[in-house]
This record gives sequence, structure tokens and C-alpha cells, in this order.
Amino acid sequence: MWVYEKKLQYPVNIKNTNPKLAKMIITQYGGPDGELGASLRYLSQRFSMPYPELKAILTDIGTEELGHLEMIGTIVYQLTKNLTPEEIEKQGFGDYFVDHTTGVFPTSASGTPYTASSMQVKGDPITDLHEDLAAEQKARSTYDNILRFCDDPDVKDAIKFLRAREVVHYQRFGEGLRLCTDKLDSKNFYEFNPAFDRKK
Amino acid sequence: MWVYEKKLQYPVNIKNTNPKLAKMIITQYGGPDGELGASLRYLSQRFSMPYPELKAILTDIGTEELGHLEMIGTIVYQLTKNLTPEEIEKQGFGDYFVDHTTGVFPTSASGTPYTASSMQVKGDPITDLHEDLAAEQKARSTYDNILRFCDDPDVKDAIKFLRAREVVHYQRFGEGLRLCTDKLDSKNFYEFNPAFDRKK
Amino acid sequence: MWVYEKKLQYPVNIKNTNPKLAKMIITQYGGPDGELGASLRYLSQRFSMPYPELKAILTDIGTEELGHLEMIGTIVYQLTKNLTPEEIEKQGFGDYFVDHTTGVFPTSASGTPYTASSMQVKGDPITDLHEDLAAEQKARSTYDNILRFCDDPDVKDAIKFLRAREVVHYQRFGEGLRLCTDKLDSKNFYEFNPAFDRKK
Amino acid sequence: MWVYEKKLQYPVNIKNTNPKLAKMIITQYGGPDGELGASLRYLSQRFSMPYPELKAILTDIGTEELGHLEMIGTIVYQLTKNLTPEEIEKQGFGDYFVDHTTGVFPTSASGTPYTASSMQVKGDPITDLHEDLAAEQKARSTYDNILRFCDDPDVKDAIKFLRAREVVHYQRFGEGLRLCTDKLDSKNFYEFNPAFDRKK
Amino acid sequence: MWVYEKKLQYPVNIKNTNPKLAKMIITQYGGPDGELGASLRYLSQRFSMPYPELKAILTDIGTEELGHLEMIGTIVYQLTKNLTPEEIEKQGFGDYFVDHTTGVFPTSASGTPYTASSMQVKGDPITDLHEDLAAEQKARSTYDNILRFCDDPDVKDAIKFLRAREVVHYQRFGEGLRLCTDKLDSKNFYEFNPAFDRKK
Amino acid sequence: MWVYEKKLQYPVNIKNTNPKLAKMIITQYGGPDGELGASLRYLSQRFSMPYPELKAILTDIGTEELGHLEMIGTIVYQLTKNLTPEEIEKQGFGDYFVDHTTGVFPTSASGTPYTASSMQVKGDPITDLHEDLAAEQKARSTYDNILRFCDDPDVKDAIKFLRAREVVHYQRFGEGLRLCTDKLDSKNFYEFNPAFDRKK
Repeated sequence: MWVYEKKLQYPVNIKNTNPKLAKMIITQYGGPDGELGASLRYLSQRFSMPYPELKAILTDIGTEELGHLEMIGTIVYQLTKNLTPEEIEKQGFGDYFVDHTTGVFPTSASGTPYTASSMQVKGDPITDLHEDLAAEQKARSTYDNILRFCDDPDVKDAIKFLRAREVVHYQRFGEGLRLCTDKLDSKNFYEFNPAFDRKK
Repeated sequence: MWVYEKKLQYPVNIKNTNPKLAKMIITQYGGPDGELGASLRYLSQRFSMPYPELKAILTDIGTEELGHLEMIGTIVYQLTKNLTPEEIEKQGFGDYFVDHTTGVFPTSASGTPYTASSMQVKGDPITDLHEDLAAEQKARSTYDNILRFCDDPDVKDAIKFLRAREVVHYQRFGEGLRLCTDKLDSKNFYEFNPAFDRKK
Repeated sequence: MWVYEKKLQYPVNIKNTNPKLAKMIITQYGGPDGELGASLRYLSQRFSMPYPELKAILTDIGTEELGHLEMIGTIVYQLTKNLTPEEIEKQGFGDYFVDHTTGVFPTSASGTPYTASSMQVKGDPITDLHEDLAAEQKARSTYDNILRFCDDPDVKDAIKFLRAREVVHYQRFGEGLRLCTDKLDSKNFYEFNPAFDRKK
Repeated sequence: MWVYEKKLQYPVNIKNTNPKLAKMIITQYGGPDGELGASLRYLSQRFSMPYPELKAILTDIGTEELGHLEMIGTIVYQLTKNLTPEEIEKQGFGDYFVDHTTGVFPTSASGTPYTASSMQVKGDPITDLHEDLAAEQKARSTYDNILRFCDDPDVKDAIKFLRAREVVHYQRFGEGLRLCTDKLDSKNFYEFNPAFDRKK
Repeated sequence: MWVYEKKLQYPVNIKNTNPKLAKMIITQYGGPDGELGASLRYLSQRFSMPYPELKAILTDIGTEELGHLEMIGTIVYQLTKNLTPEEIEKQGFGDYFVDHTTGVFPTSASGTPYTASSMQVKGDPITDLHEDLAAEQKARSTYDNILRFCDDPDVKDAIKFLRAREVVHYQRFGEGLRLCTDKLDSKNFYEFNPAFDRKK
Repeated sequence: MWVYEKKLQYPVNIKNTNPKLAKMIITQYGGPDGELGASLRYLSQRFSMPYPELKAILTDIGTEELGHLEMIGTIVYQLTKNLTPEEIEKQGFGDYFVDHTTGVFPTSASGTPYTASSMQVKGDPITDLHEDLAAEQKARSTYDNILRFCDDPDVKDAIKFLRAREVVHYQRFGEGLRLCTDKLDSKNFYEFNPAFDRKK
């Protein structure tokens, strides 16, 4: 279970609104490679992960991504505060606003509500770890793209922190994969799925 | 941010596997009225919720639902342990198994991956609280339906706990709604959205 | 069955086109809280609704929402008449136009085709009525948001009519819920689902 | 607008429950080629249909399909009445039941909630009529498939009625297409879209 | 199986970028009536098509549509080359860019990822051919709409080629339908599905 | 463009029908980790892949996966030939049959139509190659799971061939990733996206 600690993992204090940028950043809330998908992927995979060290990595990173989801929600919320209808219309935020006002809804930048189709839990440790390595690279690329549009140092600072964490997670999953293949038959570690086959 | 505490909110110790029941219960993991949707709905709504007391209720319940998600994942995982291919086929678990082995994937009972289309964040406190009251009733009904198929006391016990919590949450959201309408103009509290209009 | 009467429930006569506004209003045609979802929700719920008075309310309101769907379609169509490609491009209507020309397609403002994932039929009278109360509030909030962007009195007039009807429907569902709980055991009306359990 | 007449277009009186058959027939409620899609397709296309005769055909058939939707809902509801949990489980109805009890929800037989992605409104009369001809053939094929599993004369009778109506609709849309091409330049009727181009 | 030939079916050489136009044209890559859907529809239908001549038509056209998919991908890619962040933002390409940079992703113009819900394989030759006739008209209409926004002769030329091919395919499917009905009982060719019933 | 060669990449000759197995195997036609997704992923990624060697790998493997899609379609079709309604019902094939007869439709085993949400094109070579490595592992795991249910040597033989190819593809993408990182700054190859940044 989780306990809420009333602070962000890293502070977010944005002074200027920017709904156009908010619409891009929201993709890390509910888009295909965002923090919700990351957290849900890792916290779901850990049930069938057979090795305690790997279960721990999934729990740790999955929990941290929950905190990132909160940071992204905060960024989006602060970027859309005190807007007037004129600003909303001019900045292309109307399509989002009409359905959610300035509430934070899990959607991609192009307006597709979050779908778990964009993640996978395969119940095979090697495969799940590959899924995770790819997920971290996809999140990293999204942050790279967001940074291309950020002039505001307040936003830039938080996004850079999040991007750096994805690189660290990628490295940890890399170590996890090595740890996992070490435990399996070195000649062909695909022949046997320790999450399922050991149970027979 | 959240801190993980290595225990379940309520213990789950299932001795007998039952993949047919697992396929029904998984709907509370990733189905339309399940714990993922509940948690995501409340934790997303709180950004635009204008009153601190209500923000706190949303954070509390949203965090508790994360713990329920973990309980449901544990139930599903324990109900599908040590299966043989024969059991999987006989119990109608093959369609799930081929894509996820015995990993826990956020899906409805009928096999639709979780979609945020089944929840809403409207950025209007009265509306969001109505959404939440409905969500708790829908979760309660799903648990009612699950209980109609549970003979196993180990499963029944955990499901009854979860169902009881939904009723408590429903009551808390009811109090929240009263608290919210008290703060608004008593004659027509729909004329003004304190999450957006106060900002002008 | 239904009989078509060749008039709108309330007249719609818009003189000036405005594709940007049309793109927002279309969310009440096929978006998550729109008239199609409303109508489909109520007309589907009535099959399992055990009390004749409530079945009648669902049929009445569901039928009226069909008429609202027609009004919204008419508004969208009138707002996009006689456009030139230049206007379409300038007003951000191109993404819609390329797939539907100026036909009326059931989609949300952000371009997601209508999905029944955004509604629920739970087969439990108390739960279904809560779903309906929430639906009316969500529709009301959407109309509030649309009105923030309407300068045109022709559009405003029709949208205000539709918004007022949602408030009336909300009140009727509130009365329906009281009527429903009165018929159930007053101590714990969740223990028994009259749509299913009475049948035993 | 529509007026509800309290009778079915064709009587439905099913004496024996059959949840397995209900699960197949529900695809004509909310599946890809079902009555909801049919009705929504025709009632949406008529806004941009430039010729009054064709607008009238779309309104007529779209309204009749609403009545068919009601018939299908009635069939599904009658086929799932008075079930026990044992019957539900044995007949493979549990995956549906857990989320909807015996309420009627717009879904395909394989459990995907209705999506408007399965229909199109193209805003071009020739194209929309081709879409409609295909839709009628797809509905006809679905009824053919349902009939392969119907032994019960009560169900068979209603399904045969519905199938026969689809064939009639197909013929009417065929006449509509001839009527439409007659109005256009006989040499190349694709060069001009009377729903859009006439407006210039 | 397929062999790749390193050339486009028709040359594409676009000199000027235009991300706004790219966003419209991409709907023919992954949108509801695009080349991916066309190819997948025909190549899937051929398995159950009972007549060799029709199987051959489906294979031919399905294979050609794969080549069209490649052409559309090339057009989109060339239209988005060498963009600066400023151009991306100004031309409304940011929502796409943040998730895909300038990679080519199968999506509709309004941002919905490709879904097979927009096509059908019915396993009935007459029905499948009607689906195909409608598909060709829908693709034709989309190209008509794209052409309304094309000033650039390089783009226009390729799009006109693709549009002309859809008209040819429509005619071939028309001949296929005649061929198919000729083989069936002339009085009522719906009574018998040669893809299924002949097998008994 | 592609040229069709009238033979399968590897022969498929199944003598005995088995619709239950067909329903599992179809997930490799249109499921989340299937051959359609594989082919579409690689053939889409190659447009923005900056290095000719890698573009060639993507084209080669994407084209081969098209041939695998054809093999899977053939397997599914042969496994569902000459069925009677009784067999369809008994083997749980009715939900699929009612909408597609015995046509081959791109769906997952649990009945969700193919969606491109399950793949990604990120427009960043390192990220796209990680996506591809994960895709091959996911496909490999699905084939592992299918093999657990295959007694029929005719089916087993073809599935083993397909599984072996995924392992080869995984290795080729691994070499591709090395080749790619060699071309980038060895200290931090994430700082620069050669698919986008070189263009400035």
C-alpha cells in the first residue's frame, strides 16, 4: 500500500501561464509514453516477477513514477491558471477546455484518453524488462521534444529533472535485465519462463 | 508524492486457484468501474478542486484506492498460480493467457484494456463530486456481482472488505458535496464554477 | 418504437458560420458527456429498471435527449455552412474536414469518435440513477463551458435552452432516486438489487 | 424530434432464457454492424444530405432502426431473465454479468463497447450512400449468423423480421443512389460534391 | 508473401515543407478511410473469399494499397522535413510532434491512432465486396478533400494519382460483385453464404 | 512498393480444425504483439530513420512480417474450416463468428480490434530500436504461450518457425542498435536526435 507525503518529489513553481505548452506536456500525464503508463506498467508487472530484487526495482520505480505523475499534473495545472476565454481560444486550448475546463484529465497531446493498450504486461521477466527499457527511452524522447518548446526556466527545470530520472531508470532496468539473464540458463534463456514454468 | 509501505491494506491469502473467478475479479483492476479508474479519477480531480478540505478527501481516497488496486492484483495473481495448460483451457482463461501469461494486466472482464474514457475530470467541483458518488456506487455493484460467484471464504473476505470501503467512500463524497454546496450561493449553485470563475 | 415529428424541440436559426465554435459544440453530439451518450444511457438502462415509474422517466428523458442530439447536429451543421477552404484552414477545422467534409460525425471536441466506454448500464437501479445524476451534471458543465465562448445570440439561445433542460432532468432523476430507495429496505438498501435478486 | 409510442415495431415474447444466445445477439445492440450504429449513421448523415428525398429516406430508416434497437434490447433482456449464478457461469455469461448484471449495455459480442469508429459520415452523398448499402449488407450477414444458432421459434421469428427489414432498407438505399447520381453530371459524378461545392 | 522493390509506385518529390498539410494527409496513412485500412481489409478478406478470381482481385488491390501507404508516408515525411520548433508551433503540429517527433505514425488527422474498428471482414462474399466498394468511395472523398487544400503541384500530382487509382479499384470491385452474384442463385443470392455454407 | 509472390514464406498445411486454438493464434494476426503491429511498426519507422543500413533492416524485417501475417491468417483460416454451428458453440467461437463468420479479422484473442495504440514510432533512432527489441520479445513470448496449447504437429511446426524468426529479428535489431550508437557521440548519445536535430 502507499502513504501520501504532502510534497512533490521536486518543486514546481511556474509563474506564467502557457496553455499551448500545457497541451503538449499533458501527454506525459495520460499519453502513450507518459508517467501514468510507466507507473501502471511497473506496478502491474511486479506481481508475476519471480525474483525479489526485480520485484523491488519495479515497486521502487513504479512508486517514483506516481510522484512524477503528480508533478506533471501540477505543471499542467499551473500552466493553465487564471485563463480568460480569449486566451483559451487563441492558444488552441478550447477543444480540451470544453470537456474538462481546467481540470487535469489523463489524455495524450492529440486528445486520446489514456488507454492501457499502450503498455504491456507479458508475464515473462525478460520480455517485461525489455518493455520497460523501451518505455524509459520513449519517455526520454518525449521530454526531449517538450524541451524543444520550453523557454520558461520554471518549466524547463522540472522537465529536465524528470528527463534525468528516466535515464536513471533505464540504467536500473538494464542492470535488472542482466541480473535476470544471469539466473537463467546461459545458453538459451528463452526456453524457460521462470514466471510460469517453474510452477509445474 | 507517495511512499510504498510493504504490506497490503488488508491481508490476502488465497489457497485455491480459480482462473474463471480471476477473470471476473480482474475487472476491478482495469475495468470500467475498477480501482485503477477510481484512484486515477480522484488523484486527477484534486488539482482543480478549489477547497482544501475536498482536495484532502480526494487525496486520501485516491491513495487508498491505489492500495485496493494492489489488493485486487494480488487476488488475481493468487487465483492463477500454478496452473497447467489443461486448466487454463478448461476454465476459459486461454484468451487472457496467450497475451499476458499469468501477469496482471489492466483489463475489463470482457477483455478491453483500461481506458480513461470510462472516467471524467470536469474541472467543476459539484460535477466532479457527482462523478465520484456514481463511481463508488458502480464499484459497489461490481463487488456485489463478484460476491454472487464467490464460494471461497479467502476471496470473499477480501472482496467484502473492499466493498465496505466503497460504501464509506460514498458517504465521504456525500459529505464533501454538502460542504461544497454550502460554500456556494445557496439559490443557484450552478451559476458559478469556483474552480474556474473565481480566477477572473 | 419512435415516431419522427418534423420539427426541432426548440428552434435553431443561426445566421453566421463559426467552425471554431462548431468544433467545440460537436462534443455535445458525440463527446463523453454529450446528448448521444445521454440518450443511449437512459434508453438502455430502462430494460432492467424494475419499477414502472422509473422506466417511464428513463424513456421520457432518453427520448427527449434524442431531440437534443438533433438540435446539436443542426447547430453544428449551420455553423459550418458555406465555408471556403481558407476559412476552414484558418479556423482549425481542417482536421475534422478532411475526414467528414461538413457532415456531422459523432466525435468529441478533441477528435475521439464516440465510445460507449464513457457511459455505464449497471443493472442496479440505485447505481444507474447515480450514473444518470452525474451525467446530467457533466452535460450541464459542458454547456457552461460552451456558453463562455458564445457571443452569437442565435447559438446562445439554443444552448441555454439545452442547459436548462439538463437541470430539469437532474431534478427528475433526484426524485427518481428517492422513489427507488423508498421501495427498498430502509436500513440498507444496498443489500438487495431489485433488478436481479427479486427474480429468485 | 421523436415521439415515443409504447409498443415494439414487432412483438417479442421469449419464454426460455438463453444467455449464450443473448451474448451473440447483443452484437446487434452495440456491435460494429448493429442497430445503434445503423440508426446513428443515418440520422447523422442527413444533416449534410443535399436532396430532400434522400434526407427523408435517411430520417425514415434511421428512425426505424431506433425501433429495432429497442427490439434487440428486449430480446437480450428476455433471454437473460431469472438467471441463477450457476447458469451465468455455465453459459459463459459471467464476463458480461460482472460489469452490467443483466442490464443491456451497447457492446459487441466479443465485449468491445460501441465505438463510432465503426461507422462513417463523409459529407458526400454518393459516398454516404455506399456506406449505407454496405452497412445493410453487414447487418444482414450478422442476422444470418445469428439464425444459424437459433432453435427457439420465439427468437427466430423476431430475428427474421429484422433481417427482412435490412434487405428492404438495402433496396431503398439502392434507389436513393440512383436518384442521387441522376441529379449529378452523368459523365463523372465524382467531380462535384453537392453537399459542399454547391455552396460556393 | 511479399517482395520489396526499392521504388515508389509513383514518384514523390516535394520541395517545400508544409506541416499543416501533412497533418491532413496523414489521415490517409492511419485514418478511418486510409491506405492502411484499405490494404488490411482486402488482404484479410481474401482468406475466406471462395472464388479464385475474387481472391486474386483482393490480393492485387491489397498489395497495391501497401504501395500507396508507402507513398503517403513519403509525402508526410517530405512535408515535415527540416522544421524548426517555431514552425511546428505556428502550424499546429506540436500535438503530433511531442509524441512522434517527425516519425510517421498511423493516426487520423484528428489524432486517433489507427483502429481496425473502422474496417470489417464479414466472411460473406457479397457483404465483403459492398464493404470494399464503400471503402473506395470513402478514400476517394478524402482525396477530394485533401485536394481542396493543395496548392503545391508536387503534392497535388501524387494525390491525384492516388485518387485515380481508388476510382479504378471501385470499378474492379463492381465487376467482382457482378461476378460473385452470377455464381449464386439468381433469385435470392442472400440465402446462401458460399464462404461458409458450401462447407457442410 | 511490394510485389506479391504466390507462396507462403513457410508452408502451412493443417488437417484438423480447432477453433479454440484459432481464437488464441489470431492474437498474432491483430493482437497487441502480433505480426500486423510488427510489420506496421517497422515499415512506419523507416521514413525517419537517418541511417541507410538501419532503414534497410527495418524494410527487410517489416516486409518479412507481412509474410508472417499471411501465414498466421492461413493458420487461423485452416483451423476454422468446415465447422458446424454445434462445434462453433461448443468451442467458444460464437462471439467471433457472429461478427465475422469464418473470415479473418485483425483482433486480439480477447476480442479487441487491432489498435495502433499498441505500437510507437518516436522519430528517434535509439528509442525506435528499443521499441523494436521489446516488440520482438513480446512476440516471442506470445508464441511460447501458443506452443503450450499446441498438440497438433502441423500447427506446431509453423508456429516454431515463426518463433525462431522473432529471435533472429531481435538479434538483428540488437546489431542495429550498436551500429546506431557507434554513429553518435559516445559519451552521451541521448543529447542529439539525428532524425531531427541534424536538419538544423
